[in-house]
Amino acid sequence: MAGTIDITYNILCNEHEGRGGDNIETLLREIALEQTVEVPDGCFLNQPHINTTIVPTVRDVRPLEPDKYTTDNATDRYITAIHKTPRRYRATLSFNPEVTAWQLPQFLNVLFGNISFNNNVQVVGIDLSDDFLRAFKGPGYGIPGIRQMLGVYGRPLLCAVLKPMGLSAVDLASLAADFALGGADIIKDDHGLVDQPFCPFEQRIALCQQGIEAANAKTARKTLYFPNITDSADKIEGRLRFALRGGVAGVLVAPYLVGLDTVRYLASTYRIIIMAHPAMTGAYFHDPNHGIRPSVLLGSVFRLMGADLSIFPNAGGRFNFTPEECLRLSQSLRGPLGQLTPAFPAPAGGMNLDNVAEMAAMYGEDTVYTIGGSLLQHPEGVRKGVEAFLEKIISCFPHAYQPSVQSSPPQWQPRSSQASVTLGEVFEHLSFSEGFGWSGRSPRLYKEGVNQPFRYISRHELIGRYGEETRFDLRYFQIEPGGYSSFERHLHIHVVICIRGEGVLLVGGSRYTLRPFDIGYIAPMRPHQLINESVAPFGFFCIVDHERDRPIPL
Amino acid sequence: MAGTIDITYNILCNEHEGRGGDNIETLLREIALEQTVEVPDGCFLNQPHINTTIVPTVRDVRPLEPDKYTTDNATDRYITAIHKTPRRYRATLSFNPEVTAWQLPQFLNVLFGNISFNNNVQVVGIDLSDDFLRAFKGPGYGIPGIRQMLGVYGRPLLCAVLKPMGLSAVDLASLAADFALGGADIIKDDHGLVDQPFCPFEQRIALCQQGIEAANAKTARKTLYFPNITDSADKIEGRLRFALRGGVAGVLVAPYLVGLDTVRYLASTYRIIIMAHPAMTGAYFHDPNHGIRPSVLLGSVFRLMGADLSIFPNAGGRFNFTPEECLRLSQSLRGPLGQLTPAFPAPAGGMNLDNVAEMAAMYGEDTVYTIGGSLLQHPEGVRKGVEAFLEKIISCFPHAYQPSVQSSPPQWQPRSSQASVTLGEVFEHLSFSEGFGWSGRSPRLYKEGVNQPFRYISRHELIGRYGEETRFDLRYFQIEPGGYSSFERHLHIHVVICIRGEGVLLVGGSRYTLRPFDIGYIAPMRPHQLINESVAPFGFFCIVDHERDRPIPL
Repeated sequence: MAGTIDITYNILCNEHEGRGGDNIETLLREIALEQTVEVPDGCFLNQPHINTTIVPTVRDVRPLEPDKYTTDNATDRYITAIHKTPRRYRATLSFNPEVTAWQLPQFLNVLFGNISFNNNVQVVGIDLSDDFLRAFKGPGYGIPGIRQMLGVYGRPLLCAVLKPMGLSAVDLASLAADFALGGADIIKDDHGLVDQPFCPFEQRIALCQQGIEAANAKTARKTLYFPNITDSADKIEGRLRFALRGGVAGVLVAPYLVGLDTVRYLASTYRIIIMAHPAMTGAYFHDPNHGIRPSVLLGSVFRLMGADLSIFPNAGGRFNFTPEECLRLSQSLRGPLGQLTPAFPAPAGGMNLDNVAEMAAMYGEDTVYTIGGSLLQHPEGVRKGVEAFLEKIISCFPHAYQPSVQSSPPQWQPRSSQASVTLGEVFEHLSFSEGFGWSGRSPRLYKEGVNQPFRYISRHELIGRYGEETRFDLRYFQIEPGGYSSFERHLHIHVVICIRGEGVLLVGGSRYTLRPFDIGYIAPMRPHQLINESVAPFGFFCIVDHERDRPIPL
Repeated sequence: MAGTIDITYNILCNEHEGRGGDNIETLLREIALEQTVEVPDGCFLNQPHINTTIVPTVRDVRPLEPDKYTTDNATDRYITAIHKTPRRYRATLSFNPEVTAWQLPQFLNVLFGNISFNNNVQVVGIDLSDDFLRAFKGPGYGIPGIRQMLGVYGRPLLCAVLKPMGLSAVDLASLAADFALGGADIIKDDHGLVDQPFCPFEQRIALCQQGIEAANAKTARKTLYFPNITDSADKIEGRLRFALRGGVAGVLVAPYLVGLDTVRYLASTYRIIIMAHPAMTGAYFHDPNHGIRPSVLLGSVFRLMGADLSIFPNAGGRFNFTPEECLRLSQSLRGPLGQLTPAFPAPAGGMNLDNVAEMAAMYGEDTVYTIGGSLLQHPEGVRKGVEAFLEKIISCFPHAYQPSVQSSPPQWQPRSSQASVTLGEVFEHLSFSEGFGWSGRSPRLYKEGVNQPFRYISRHELIGRYGEETRFDLRYFQIEPGGYSSFERHLHIHVVICIRGEGVLLVGGSRYTLRPFDIGYIAPMRPHQLINESVAPFGFFCIVDHERDRPIPL
């Protein structure tokens, strides 16, 4: 097999107890079987190859020194063995990537599915093959993308948290405006804010985004808003779309509440920043000798999933991550991981004006300080609180750079900023003429200023761009023989109606022939292309939303 | 507030240590704040009502006797306190259901989101208000539905497990046929079987279902097949649909791999039996003083999610659930829970022919024995293995009943009969036919239930009213000679495109003749009417906003 997926475990082994399963080779073999074939050893029916291609092989095994045994302990953790102290080993199993089918849910199963019920094993590291990593897009923006959007370099970012639950949307928007006036780089919803009756989602998102945009206009700087989109499986994508349409650049989501692969799907489908919240993951970190190390789960796995920022409990806060673990986690997010963009560690909790310098020395510049309570409790109000934090941060980073004027807009942008061409008089009637033209409407290039693969295609803007008060646009496209449109996808839908000749519509994996008055519907985010394989012009109407997102070329 | 959501915790409290957070009231207050507002006490800005309606109240708190302290321990669990032994309390907090927004992800957050990072708290019980429960459908089939489908009563069911990973689809189908010939009630995929290259999903499901149906025809009995549909978020629904189309009655899925609410969505949308696998949940049960009790997570929560059967590690198997916990879990699945149908406990592991009687005494009849390795290792082959197990089971349940001929197809209907099993997806292509009709679209009356002056006019709804995600509708209207539309005005605009014959468009004081591909635009509130003064049909597309105001007749 090409590259393998290597998983490294710490394993406790009661060598002195004398029962079955008490030597490290036996324990490793049990883990290897449990995570793949799940049958007793030797019970492979008539297929001996299973043992060589499906069951992982032991790559490495060595005892850890006894004094390392409690290195990871935080003060309040309870560990001790019943009977004799078990010995601790570190071992690595090499898995054939085929067993994961290159999908996240089955990868999680291989990582810690059944052995989550074992009491003696902790996943402490993963090493993923390039082949496997290529199946994942990872962070869409990551550290470089977010910095570019903000125009802020050389210092950690400050993320202020909107809370508490129970405030109205109006109050939260006012709080958001204050955070933004103070200069926060990012404002995120508390992860418990969903669509409660006392603070409906759409109202909150609209008002907070407005409040922040108004503040940005005053400060001539840029604060990004990341609303929480955690919701039911059948609603979360709609939440994200609503946020996108409202001009929001990123979202907060808790992968363990909505499913990690749901987040991967959203991150890899939409142009949006993903901030991951660790709610409900704490059980994996409770015992330093069991579970999955935070650096693996909240670091490598969340980055693989597509988190651009990963929130975790800061050392010294109200939860119990050690400084070593926080640094290891930060390294998993920022260090090399195949082709994946580095992501921001976002330590949360336990930050105050007095330990900013300490934080700066510990985490370095590529970090997002996620601050809630400390800002809300600032004696001179939250705006002054943000200013004071920012001042402290900048004082620790002499090369910090941020633009004094508003940085360029984010790449994603509704088309509305492209002002409609108004000719003064709005026509009520466009008369059709021979050769497929309309009165008052000249053909244009298919796309302007975009360097994408398309050929022999022209466009008439018929209705929507000449001052009509429509929420949709009607266009006519014509593709000459041998031509085609860009292969692309986008959030807005298309309705196409063939009116001339014959053409081919590709949607997803389907291929349709369009003849006059045949209609095509292209659902959101479906890859599509129109092609003329005939020997005569192929022409079609295309109806789209007036306000729409930019296509993503494929 | 109406009913509350009551969550009961066991809490360890280091009363003697003298630091903050060391008395039970303080700890409870911390939990109450952490799970809702997430701000320091008193920091509620100007909104005192938050403390009464958002923060939960303490319903009950009492110390547990010291001798109960280790009651739950299994032999291999390591528990002990650093410093002095902490005292254990049981306490109940009452939450306002509004904070959950009646959705599963936010309910999970309230249940064990941030406090998963606390080291001293375990969720041991939940009591859900009827109001909250009514937001969930729960098991669509449950114990009564599955029994009726099988025609088997008065004894536990036998579920055989298809494995190991690495077998081809052909080999697995052959194994499945043997299980079915032996009389297994259910055959489920191992949860690690997904869509690996060595055993593609569609091939496996088709061949196994065929093998089982062929065996059913021979035995004149009924064995159900539950394939594993665990897959990426954008593929899992397609997997389920494929299985449904192939005649499969149920599916296996691991909620912690794909997301609990993804499973809830599938369970409440499709008529299919859901068998839940506990992969990756073990970390919540690792420490008997931390996490969530199996009876809560794999019992109540999975049932709320819609599991008809919940698999868990059987006491005495290779994992460490105690008999007490297994029984408590079974009770959570089978006992009263609002309007929800009872679900089957499906203990897995540690079963053999020698302990069937013991299992029978422990779990009673409403149980599914989930058996893998023991069947594969039967010296006379898997078919004999199943027969031997069934014989043993039946011998323990003298009133067991099962039909000797194949039971009739299931009559039991899931409660939500309006569940949308729309296997006919949204059309991507409407083909035009002679006579101005489109595939899948019948003509309708011009207007229904409205008494307005119009004549000889019909309407096709083409796009926008058949599940398409458009913000506009595309319709086709046809006016026969002598006919006309209502004379009316409205806020929404019209775009009309003539495609058949010739007609007249009146807009305000203007009169336009429309011939094929001529376009009309009707601005907001402009009085308008379409008229056919010719001797042949006049047909036109009309595009309007999907959400629009009602016309005002003139």
